[in-house]
Amino acid sequence: MMIRFECDYTEGAHARIMKRLMDTNEEQTPGYGMDEHCERARAYIRKACQAENADVHFLVGGTQANTTIIASILRPHQGAVAASTGHIAVHETGAIEATGHKVLTLPSDDGKIKAEQVKELYDAHWNDVTHEHMVQPGLVYISHPTENGTTYSKSELEAISKVCRECGMPLVMDGARLGYGLTAKDSDLSLADIARLCDVFYIGGTKVGALMGEAVVIVNDALKKDFRYSIKQHGGMLAKGRLLGIQFETLFEDGLYYEISQHAVDMAMMIREAFAEQGFSFRYDSMTNQQFPILPNEALLKLSEKYSFSHWEKVDAENSAVRFCTSWATKKENVEMLIKDIKAL
Amino acid sequence: MMIRFECDYTEGAHARIMKRLMDTNEEQTPGYGMDEHCERARAYIRKACQAENADVHFLVGGTQANTTIIASILRPHQGAVAASTGHIAVHETGAIEATGHKVLTLPSDDGKIKAEQVKELYDAHWNDVTHEHMVQPGLVYISHPTENGTTYSKSELEAISKVCRECGMPLVMDGARLGYGLTAKDSDLSLADIARLCDVFYIGGTKVGALMGEAVVIVNDALKKDFRYSIKQHGGMLAKGRLLGIQFETLFEDGLYYEISQHAVDMAMMIREAFAEQGFSFRYDSMTNQQFPILPNEALLKLSEKYSFSHWEKVDAENSAVRFCTSWATKKENVEMLIKDIKAL
Amino acid sequence: MMIRFECDYTEGAHARIMKRLMDTNEEQTPGYGMDEHCERARAYIRKACQAENADVHFLVGGTQANTTIIASILRPHQGAVAASTGHIAVHETGAIEATGHKVLTLPSDDGKIKAEQVKELYDAHWNDVTHEHMVQPGLVYISHPTENGTTYSKSELEAISKVCRECGMPLVMDGARLGYGLTAKDSDLSLADIARLCDVFYIGGTKVGALMGEAVVIVNDALKKDFRYSIKQHGGMLAKGRLLGIQFETLFEDGLYYEISQHAVDMAMMIREAFAEQGFSFRYDSMTNQQFPILPNEALLKLSEKYSFSHWEKVDAENSAVRFCTSWATKKENVEMLIKDIKAL
Amino acid sequence: MMIRFECDYTEGAHARIMKRLMDTNEEQTPGYGMDEHCERARAYIRKACQAENADVHFLVGGTQANTTIIASILRPHQGAVAASTGHIAVHETGAIEATGHKVLTLPSDDGKIKAEQVKELYDAHWNDVTHEHMVQPGLVYISHPTENGTTYSKSELEAISKVCRECGMPLVMDGARLGYGLTAKDSDLSLADIARLCDVFYIGGTKVGALMGEAVVIVNDALKKDFRYSIKQHGGMLAKGRLLGIQFETLFEDGLYYEISQHAVDMAMMIREAFAEQGFSFRYDSMTNQQFPILPNEALLKLSEKYSFSHWEKVDAENSAVRFCTSWATKKENVEMLIKDIKAL
Repeated sequence: MMIRFECDYTEGAHARIMKRLMDTNEEQTPGYGMDEHCERARAYIRKACQAENADVHFLVGGTQANTTIIASILRPHQGAVAASTGHIAVHETGAIEATGHKVLTLPSDDGKIKAEQVKELYDAHWNDVTHEHMVQPGLVYISHPTENGTTYSKSELEAISKVCRECGMPLVMDGARLGYGLTAKDSDLSLADIARLCDVFYIGGTKVGALMGEAVVIVNDALKKDFRYSIKQHGGMLAKGRLLGIQFETLFEDGLYYEISQHAVDMAMMIREAFAEQGFSFRYDSMTNQQFPILPNEALLKLSEKYSFSHWEKVDAENSAVRFCTSWATKKENVEMLIKDIKAL
Repeated sequence: MMIRFECDYTEGAHARIMKRLMDTNEEQTPGYGMDEHCERARAYIRKACQAENADVHFLVGGTQANTTIIASILRPHQGAVAASTGHIAVHETGAIEATGHKVLTLPSDDGKIKAEQVKELYDAHWNDVTHEHMVQPGLVYISHPTENGTTYSKSELEAISKVCRECGMPLVMDGARLGYGLTAKDSDLSLADIARLCDVFYIGGTKVGALMGEAVVIVNDALKKDFRYSIKQHGGMLAKGRLLGIQFETLFEDGLYYEISQHAVDMAMMIREAFAEQGFSFRYDSMTNQQFPILPNEALLKLSEKYSFSHWEKVDAENSAVRFCTSWATKKENVEMLIKDIKAL
Repeated sequence: MMIRFECDYTEGAHARIMKRLMDTNEEQTPGYGMDEHCERARAYIRKACQAENADVHFLVGGTQANTTIIASILRPHQGAVAASTGHIAVHETGAIEATGHKVLTLPSDDGKIKAEQVKELYDAHWNDVTHEHMVQPGLVYISHPTENGTTYSKSELEAISKVCRECGMPLVMDGARLGYGLTAKDSDLSLADIARLCDVFYIGGTKVGALMGEAVVIVNDALKKDFRYSIKQHGGMLAKGRLLGIQFETLFEDGLYYEISQHAVDMAMMIREAFAEQGFSFRYDSMTNQQFPILPNEALLKLSEKYSFSHWEKVDAENSAVRFCTSWATKKENVEMLIKDIKAL
Repeated sequence: MMIRFECDYTEGAHARIMKRLMDTNEEQTPGYGMDEHCERARAYIRKACQAENADVHFLVGGTQANTTIIASILRPHQGAVAASTGHIAVHETGAIEATGHKVLTLPSDDGKIKAEQVKELYDAHWNDVTHEHMVQPGLVYISHPTENGTTYSKSELEAISKVCRECGMPLVMDGARLGYGLTAKDSDLSLADIARLCDVFYIGGTKVGALMGEAVVIVNDALKKDFRYSIKQHGGMLAKGRLLGIQFETLFEDGLYYEISQHAVDMAMMIREAFAEQGFSFRYDSMTNQQFPILPNEALLKLSEKYSFSHWEKVDAENSAVRFCTSWATKKENVEMLIKDIKAL
């Protein structure tokens, strides 16, 4: 049996979540997120974000969350600014375009964008005499951590937030792996910082302990109106909404979200160290649950006999960057086995 | 504590499904529906449909399924023909329109449409000299059972199917409550009939024993291509797809789907009989899990002290039609209590 | 050679417009409506509307104008309220739906809607507990004159406008035939009234003397922002925008628009009278350039030997309603010949 | 008075077109392109293309034509492959995205794309294991001449066409300036070649002698169905369609289109030579009606006193690329004056 490090959604849910789902299974609740579990989960999340006035909505998945948020914010002639590597730019089968909006990409190698890039794109648009013939930048989308495992520092996020506010473009953060960013050892960003600096963001559950589910937090009052219509229109209004409420309640009532995120990051750091000790370099400098070592083909082949992981990109004829993911569910004994095999390469 | 008959998604999932989710929780599987549970569930469903070549996809919810199916079939200038009461026409916040398509409605009181209506609409379109200025009917959407609990007989469905094929319009069936239609006592339609007569349909799990999930069955080869792109674009590609596979595997490996559907229908028939015996009439003639008695206001008020149910429509100053739903989860003791209270009205 | 009364766009443009196009043909101007002709035309129109702060944009056709306006105003989950007979509801191949929005129809026989209907639909939406599952009414669209030749009185329009403002739904008027409404003998509505009561409307040129062109007037400040982006996105930004400017300049510099509209209405009244004198009744009570007599089949056949006109609808086995259109271009001698032939029926 | 070389749509229409519009002004014709002028124009164009079975439709402008064509061809999950500089990628305010489709860009400096690039993008998509999560390339869009004045040779177009057919992706050519490409002195591509190698293309009128209008030629039978619905839905069904028919009739009945295109190209070559003789280099190597000399700032300032032209891009602190356009309407005396002023720089 292959040991899977290919992604961070290979298992079901954390045992405490499964237990809670069992315990509540026979409860009768109203549908569509209007139940008490959702209410409690919202309260926990608002508190964790230090954002008492935020609206919190529960959606099933990341593409759904991104599409619903972005389509709800933009006017038809506006686009979403994102890294060229951004999930919405590359890996959502044109879901954003399907709602009528262009993704305006900024070049990025490591998945991050810079405040200056945003400002330059904004200025370039408005200084162009033919700007009415071009898609107007309408919001800025970032991922934290990025698809490449990298994270924004507090000062970087503050700079982006500042530009966004000056330019009147809401800042949207895709937090599908947010837990792994919050617990990265070099991270100085708290949930409260994110709530202070972003207009809308979401806290990923699918990849961080839940069966499925993303908690969308709308901090900016101007973007709150009618969001539930938008959820329903995009097929994201889960009939048994309490399933999402129960999961986020469990994750946030006493810090489980952080605890299991930390575990994944710790496991990733062990793997990272093992690769580094063997002299391998990394495609991206990630301190989160995704690690991108560059391996010679034979090492890659050897490891793939026992472990599944993602081929990321060919670096040259002899070497490829690959991705190893850990998660809340990663077993320490599997990591230790992997490390032993890395050392044996 | 209120006893809920307001809808058919007030509880979690059937105990056997919950157990299976627990048992498989630590398994590592590939994502996006490419796992073995999904494969097995697909095989069971194909067999149940006697449609060995059908494609089977698992989506999370009904609005998502309707939107994904319809957007995948129609060309931009085409619309979906539906009953004026149809779910896509009324209760999906314009999800179909959001993909660019008009819903072309046929008048219906009980939720059903007739083959002749479809033919008339089709002829009216093509005989109009300005037809290029009008939305072209591109497919026909029906629900079985309908939102009003009514069902199509085999001969009715055959007639609609025949018209659709003559006119080149795929027939799409929304089966969010399909189990309750298949086990209705007056029903002569089998899953195999449906697979033979429809081009695409789905088997509802959300309202029939699962936490969530709809199994989309594409019978018509011409409509199979690239459907997974469509799922992803509409945000319906569940990362942990195996959750849906596990649930449908459980529902279809040995007939659980029928068994629990039958239970709901039996419970509904008991309620129906109780109301009928008390001399109440019904807004729709439903043999499925939804019952629509017309109650005097005082009876309605009396029952609402103990039970939750949906107010459907005002019939006159003194009477309203209401909806009582049963489901796979309905407890017999609750139904018996309700019946006692009905008899006491 | 058939004499055409089938519609109001059978000829080119008014002679003065053609002359002006010839006279200005070699002028070099900037593109996209930024030329001096457009500027002058805008000034004339603002003055005629007594709306000095209105934004005026020139588009090529009616469907384009409706789509651009409506898509620019609505949020994605909102729909446009219109008469069931409205042009956007029936005759634009789903152009509104193609921008993602449902057309919410109100029953209408003569093309008009009533303030009370709008209020009822609005209340029904917001009073429905499941309103988030339904398309939210976002604006109200009316035509003046309607597709059936009928017009709104000042008090009717005031009532609709009042409801719209109370409900926060912009009022949009399709004025493709506006000239024929303004000069109808029973009309008490001026351009200034329309500018006062509507949020956006357009003054039709295509059917009233121009080769093509509709002047969109945005009165409501909140709806002005970025409208030129919307025009460009919907393919309505005419490269040689001055062509539209020149035409509207000619139509509005000294009242030509009213003068030629009056001519069309006078011709229509002559035809109306002739049919009435012969004892024919009318499908709609129109005082504008479209007349809808109900004719026995033999009369219809007789007239169709010499004249083209539109078959509107079958009234019974023996009779059909037809449409005769006049326009700015209708020749009096043709009308007199038609009248003679009507009298001979 | 500024002499305008800023674009190729600064005047009205060619004198023969204006005369024809005058001569036919009082004719009564059916609307929407069903008149005899349109029929004749279609016949002339089919003949010029040596494509007797092609469908020919007349639209008003380029963005409208691109959007209508592309939206009509693609399925929802597909995108249009284009040069990064392509008009649909940059200058149509996201019109393609507004119909739900991503523009998949290929890097290009001079506006052209290469067959190999198309093949690589196609292969990269289909070889990616996550291709269902990415927009599928569905057609290839090129401009001829490009926005940069460059043209495809016959062998280049044959190579692109071959790849497109092997990959099942229709080839769409934007011919907004097609005349200027056909008559470029280094061009070996005829209309017949284009009709043979492309699936859909259009022959630009707006920039080549007409008031407005683009003739869309659909060669591929599979793409012909229901195109008029698509035109209407996108607001491009001109009520007085005969205006477009009359113009294209005039342009194609005896070669006027080529004759006036040749004139523009000749004028452009004179300007090109003058700049070259003065030692200026060019941003793009254009043999068509757009010329892109790189000028020192002082020369640029000097010329801008008397002539309008477009600033294209800053090359360095001292130099900028600018664009001078000629057209069918360019007066030789103005070109001679410009040349004198160039020589005096």
